[in-house]
Amino acid sequence: MENIRTPKVEHVRLIDRTNPRRCSVGTLYLSSTHSIFVENTEARRETWVLHSLVSSVERPPVSPSGNPLVIRCKNFQVFQLLIPQEKDCLDVQASLSRLSRPERYGELSCFSFNPNLNKEARDEAWSFIDLRGDYVRMGIPSNLWYITAANSEYRVCDTYPSDLYVPKSATPSVIVGSAKFRSRGRFPVLSYYHRDNSASICRSSQPLSGFSARSTEDEQMIQAIMKSNPASEFMYVVDTRPKLNAMANRAAGKGYENEDHYTNIKLQFIGIENIHVMRNSQQKIIDVGQVRSPSMGDFLWGLENSGWLKHIKAVMDAGVFIARAVAEEGISVLVHCSDGWDRTAQACSVASILLDPYYRTLKGFMVLIEKDWVAFGHKFSHRYGHLDSDPKEISPVMDQFLECVWQLMEQFPCAFEFNERFLLQLHTYVYSCQYGNFLANSQKERRDLRIQERTHSVWPHLWKDQAEYSNPLYRADHSQTQGVLRPVTTPYCFKFWKAMYNRLDQASAARQSPADCLSAVREETQQLEEELSTHQERIAFLKGRKMGAEPKKMIRANDLTRQQVQPPGRAEEGVAYSPLDYFICADHTPGTEGKAPPLFLPLGPPKGTDPDDLSGCSDLESGVADLSSRSSSGGDDTKDPDLEEAAYTTA
Amino acid sequence: MENIRTPKVEHVRLIDRTNPRRCSVGTLYLSSTHSIFVENTEARRETWVLHSLVSSVERPPVSPSGNPLVIRCKNFQVFQLLIPQEKDCLDVQASLSRLSRPERYGELSCFSFNPNLNKEARDEAWSFIDLRGDYVRMGIPSNLWYITAANSEYRVCDTYPSDLYVPKSATPSVIVGSAKFRSRGRFPVLSYYHRDNSASICRSSQPLSGFSARSTEDEQMIQAIMKSNPASEFMYVVDTRPKLNAMANRAAGKGYENEDHYTNIKLQFIGIENIHVMRNSQQKIIDVGQVRSPSMGDFLWGLENSGWLKHIKAVMDAGVFIARAVAEEGISVLVHCSDGWDRTAQACSVASILLDPYYRTLKGFMVLIEKDWVAFGHKFSHRYGHLDSDPKEISPVMDQFLECVWQLMEQFPCAFEFNERFLLQLHTYVYSCQYGNFLANSQKERRDLRIQERTHSVWPHLWKDQAEYSNPLYRADHSQTQGVLRPVTTPYCFKFWKAMYNRLDQASAARQSPADCLSAVREETQQLEEELSTHQERIAFLKGRKMGAEPKKMIRANDLTRQQVQPPGRAEEGVAYSPLDYFICADHTPGTEGKAPPLFLPLGPPKGTDPDDLSGCSDLESGVADLSSRSSSGGDDTKDPDLEEAAYTTA
Repeated sequence: MENIRTPKVEHVRLIDRTNPRRCSVGTLYLSSTHSIFVENTEARRETWVLHSLVSSVERPPVSPSGNPLVIRCKNFQVFQLLIPQEKDCLDVQASLSRLSRPERYGELSCFSFNPNLNKEARDEAWSFIDLRGDYVRMGIPSNLWYITAANSEYRVCDTYPSDLYVPKSATPSVIVGSAKFRSRGRFPVLSYYHRDNSASICRSSQPLSGFSARSTEDEQMIQAIMKSNPASEFMYVVDTRPKLNAMANRAAGKGYENEDHYTNIKLQFIGIENIHVMRNSQQKIIDVGQVRSPSMGDFLWGLENSGWLKHIKAVMDAGVFIARAVAEEGISVLVHCSDGWDRTAQACSVASILLDPYYRTLKGFMVLIEKDWVAFGHKFSHRYGHLDSDPKEISPVMDQFLECVWQLMEQFPCAFEFNERFLLQLHTYVYSCQYGNFLANSQKERRDLRIQERTHSVWPHLWKDQAEYSNPLYRADHSQTQGVLRPVTTPYCFKFWKAMYNRLDQASAARQSPADCLSAVREETQQLEEELSTHQERIAFLKGRKMGAEPKKMIRANDLTRQQVQPPGRAEEGVAYSPLDYFICADHTPGTEGKAPPLFLPLGPPKGTDPDDLSGCSDLESGVADLSSRSSSGGDDTKDPDLEEAAYTTA
Repeated sequence: MENIRTPKVEHVRLIDRTNPRRCSVGTLYLSSTHSIFVENTEARRETWVLHSLVSSVERPPVSPSGNPLVIRCKNFQVFQLLIPQEKDCLDVQASLSRLSRPERYGELSCFSFNPNLNKEARDEAWSFIDLRGDYVRMGIPSNLWYITAANSEYRVCDTYPSDLYVPKSATPSVIVGSAKFRSRGRFPVLSYYHRDNSASICRSSQPLSGFSARSTEDEQMIQAIMKSNPASEFMYVVDTRPKLNAMANRAAGKGYENEDHYTNIKLQFIGIENIHVMRNSQQKIIDVGQVRSPSMGDFLWGLENSGWLKHIKAVMDAGVFIARAVAEEGISVLVHCSDGWDRTAQACSVASILLDPYYRTLKGFMVLIEKDWVAFGHKFSHRYGHLDSDPKEISPVMDQFLECVWQLMEQFPCAFEFNERFLLQLHTYVYSCQYGNFLANSQKERRDLRIQERTHSVWPHLWKDQAEYSNPLYRADHSQTQGVLRPVTTPYCFKFWKAMYNRLDQASAARQSPADCLSAVREETQQLEEELSTHQERIAFLKGRKMGAEPKKMIRANDLTRQQVQPPGRAEEGVAYSPLDYFICADHTPGTEGKAPPLFLPLGPPKGTDPDDLSGCSDLESGVADLSSRSSSGGDDTKDPDLEEAAYTTA
């Protein structure tokens, strides 16, 4: 708390960014982790800003109305305050500047964040994502690949995970030799195995080839990878860098594979720019998105000038190239850039998303990030500026990956189980350090920091809120969502990500969220499905009674082939059904004429109804107990006596 | 047919625009209305091009592979042919050039198009849209507005419709005097009445004010409009032109209202550019969209350089200004530009779409176009080049209106009953003249051409296909879709309309249409609703039998208040339902494990199925006849014996 000079400032004004003439007056509180603005209204609306999310605190020139303070966040939110006293303003700025730039990991919010979990629950949360399980899921055949113990203590490569899949024919000496010939020891290992055709994606850093150096072991390693895809006669080495950059690295004894030394490889450069270009480009797109009312020309010029979408397209093109090689040509690919933890992570994970529908599910996407980003040593702390360190290490590598996924969602609206909100929330967590997952720069560092004992995992927390993050259009069984996605990557298909870069309008705009509309449709569908189930059971029950015997097995909602059921009453009128009819017929509830019909039904059925209590019109009391015990999906058998009350009273 | 030099050319190649290395070989036929390319494959796939839709036929330099011919259409489709013989190529070009530029109305395809309707059906089709009915629907009070007979024979204004609403206090002499003081006699008349607050939108052409002229009658007319909104103390005159353009018109004795002469008006300029600027801008955006693989920079630069989105925003801003004045301030607005048939039509119709949810329905949108465009004398034939006439008269005025609606759809995905496909189809019909609706330049011209006797109306044709044009997200009862739409018009909210201007990828891209996905969801919902209905009737029936009497009235799907029904077994377990659960439970059909479950059900129930055929598990045969007569789809009562097999056999 020694960093907080003024824990409370009164009569602060929070400016509405969409309309600077509007503001709310309140009190600003500074805690060790958050700044909290509480409105001086009856509602006492609170605005919380996590200090670890603050990227800058600026003090524009003093105005007659007060001392302005602009807080910019790493998720591109901006807060504008007006503070009456200059001293308070200076104090708040100094405190926030200090609090938002922790110097040691221990100061990060994840170490003080306590979501009230006991040790057991915390451990369970950390095992929520099971990377070994994912490799098993991929169906990697043990005659082609195996887990090497070489790096179990991070001795061969301290930025790699301990568990690594390598080709069956790669001996320990090949592994060690190859590691010695690669930047930072990041030798080629498996990232993704495509079970349909045995093609794989491997990843590494650049070779230390310079102008003429070579390594027999490294060449053997590449050969081993190719051999582990028995049907293929060559493999691709995708260098995700622009060729010029790769060539420049040769002068420093690094570079790329010499096609004369490595047999049967095809080298392909993709041209994703380096972290410095990306950082500058993102700053420009942030600036574009934060102008309050630009002209159309300014906006489009800014969008072009930032180069941002060009870079997004480059990352996407890398993923598309790799996915096409694997799925369509059946050719394995080794992907690298310089160190193999930025562009390589982007390219491999975009390719995996395109290739494997599992990674397009909520859980699968978590697994993918844990695998290709967290485990493989993407330098989260450096890239997202978790600590007050070298600003030149900061770069929006993950931002670009998340945006590629968003651009894919726009092209394939039914292919992803999660929605845009999930990507935005994840983006915030990557920067905010409330959870320990994205801390530090490698698995080894996180082990040394004992983060599993000292912090919490974000995944179960996100999983718990899956309803909020689910894409109502997702169709797991759609022909276009199963299998490989083949996006179009002409520039026409890329859009400005408004929800990420133009958060100004979000709060005030009376805009509709398609996701919310869709969720309503889905809830409604679900409700109908449940009702249907009720009625089917009811019919079975009544039939059973009629036949003078209990039915042997209850019919479940989906036990019926639906095609065999037809709507009564309507068909005889010869009415042609269009989707519209549905909405019209929803108006027909008697007694609701003239009122807005309750089209959306509350999801949770009201307590105290029992589908089988026909009191008021029937004497079918017996058998209720049987039925309810039969139709419950196991577990809790205790019955709420309220539930035995009437249901079909309208009948 | 004298225009067709070569009715048939063989061995023609149709180039795939997305991949110029791919093409199909076939025969090209030229009829008087269409060019038809028939592939030399077993499928004999046909590609039809309506001649009236052709905008240009270019002959690029001869290549070794043949004589290229590029056919560009007014809906921005492009067809590239390769013709073996130069003479054939020249003949086809000459024929198409002539056929695509009819010189007389009688040559247009609507006069030869015969959809096999008898006279009665044709007349009925023409009365499908009832403009008088729409004014009644608006609830115009007869003490404030009345229909003047002044223009019943088009004598006061030959480009106006015969039916015109004017303020109650506007006498015939005021009307005639005002018409004399307005360009082409287009005096101020009612376009839209907002029943919530009596504010209205009127439209006219510019006044003949020059530098000092005035007209008492015109001033009285404006005063009368203001008075017909009793609560207001002033009104807006929205001149949709840039102020400079309006001022320049004064030198020609035209211009805008002098605020010193007209009491209580507020003049507002909007700055929509003229038809020539728009024509040039659209040509640029067409060019941008037709480049096969531009760089991101080229695309974004082209988008900015075209100025197209800036113009779309200007039209939108005009509509937003008017809608806000009417809905929020309760102030009436007179809208004009120069002649009052281009920008005025755009501004009034965008405002009406924002103000009145009815115009966001399929039928309402048709009405709006009939009212503000067709009836009010938008010069369709001149603007869309129906005849071979002055190319300087051509301008994408309607294109811009349709795009504004599309941009609104993107912002309010649940607010429109129709979808993008409908806008694209309508756009094509505006240009193609297959139907008579958009012929000529005014109601009078169409009457003189006797189009209702000689051509057909497009509206019932579009209405018939409404399932294809419906927006599955549309919610008539959504709080945000009812009432006034308040779009955000910052540049961030405007997008490149890919489906309109980049049709290249459309054919080949394996992209998903969100609308199609949604339609599937809705069909499914509808199916469930129908099943539910079946089961409810079944229950009622069984209960009736149990009670020893036939039920007096069948229960319809929505006769039950749904909240009172609950799924058994589930609620008592306290399971929290997420939308995901639905998809999971859809997998549980026994015996389908390992197979993809039939999640999407065909909409039409199979013929001859009977929900009450319980053969195989029940002896409830009696009463089936009663119920099935109620539930059969009418007409065909013959039963398919195969379908008489067990339905509920899983029970």
